[in-house]
Amino acid sequence: MSANAENVSTGAGRPQTTNREELIAAAISLVGPHRSLSTLSLREVARAAGIAPNSFYRHFRDTDEMAAAVIDEAGTAIRHIVKEARQRISPQRSMVVTSMEVFMEQLGADDGLLPLFLREGTAGSEAYKRAVEAQLQFFEQELTGELLRVQSALKNTLYEPELAARAITRLVFAMGTTALDTPPESHPQLITDTVKMIRMIIAGAQKLAV
Amino acid sequence: MSANAENVSTGAGRPQTTNREELIAAAISLVGPHRSLSTLSLREVARAAGIAPNSFYRHFRDTDEMAAAVIDEAGTAIRHIVKEARQRISPQRSMVVTSMEVFMEQLGADDGLLPLFLREGTAGSEAYKRAVEAQLQFFEQELTGELLRVQSALKNTLYEPELAARAITRLVFAMGTTALDTPPESHPQLITDTVKMIRMIIAGAQKLAV
Repeated sequence: MSANAENVSTGAGRPQTTNREELIAAAISLVGPHRSLSTLSLREVARAAGIAPNSFYRHFRDTDEMAAAVIDEAGTAIRHIVKEARQRISPQRSMVVTSMEVFMEQLGADDGLLPLFLREGTAGSEAYKRAVEAQLQFFEQELTGELLRVQSALKNTLYEPELAARAITRLVFAMGTTALDTPPESHPQLITDTVKMIRMIIAGAQKLAV
Repeated sequence: MSANAENVSTGAGRPQTTNREELIAAAISLVGPHRSLSTLSLREVARAAGIAPNSFYRHFRDTDEMAAAVIDEAGTAIRHIVKEARQRISPQRSMVVTSMEVFMEQLGADDGLLPLFLREGTAGSEAYKRAVEAQLQFFEQELTGELLRVQSALKNTLYEPELAARAITRLVFAMGTTALDTPPESHPQLITDTVKMIRMIIAGAQKLAV
């Protein structure tokens, strides 16, 4: 590591990309169930990351741009987890059930990324909403591919697969947001219900295709 | 009207129930696209309603309780509008399409009640979320009844009609929330897409019933 003036606390330097990651990690550590990204000050995040406030601007124009990066990071992490789970699916387990279970497990994960993503989607500035919308669209694209792959293996065709994927994605995120405010004991029932709703959408897309 | 000390601005008195309505109306008039119910102060709402701040407590314990009443009012108004529209449906028009159109029209209505309802659902305190959740459950119950009525007239049976109604309600509110952040020109496409998604859910509930 080269010497670098950015780390005020230790004086130890790190490359710029690391500091960007540290600012994002600091922002994630500061928010929580009762605190939104929108309440973070630049100074506070820089302090938590051990970076001089002025150095913040090397990475982000303002706290809004940082918040959008945090949302991207959270959305990307969740997509990665769900995608990994799909690849581990055994022939005995349904893709829908496994994906939903993994998704809902993330509600209680230590990193808190899914709750962060769900909370910030509707509160927050235009920049946040655009970041959340972009991540939802990635989810939809990936799910469209997955639906087409599974259904074509089953020799089924689907009516408007992109819309089916969109309905499933929006519904799962809506149910996840509901779950944020309900006790964990109620989550198994919520998963069962949401899986049935997803099955309705897939069955409907099959029925309308013929 | 009897003389009453509550109306500080005019001195003209009104019965207590009217003052409660005035506080709710004042709160509705003060919020908007960039302002949440949670930011309203008791003093500000009382002033806008022409009521002495101390009189606020005759109607609500705190601003949270008032906010929950505002959400109830908004949800009830929207349910009423959608229900009325359903009753005017001609045999040529689909219940799904008409309901969705009327719902989305409310996004641009002067009273701003639907945007208020959609915005406050996810931001705000526990009390708000409970109020929104209660209204969504009323929507779901009414829609379950309507689905069963229409489908039984068509001699169809539905798999888990409550869950079908829940999926439709959550999806429509999620799409409505998305619409809040998109230009009105995009709304016709959003309606078309959402109607197709609702048809998938109904077709799926029919298919899974047999």
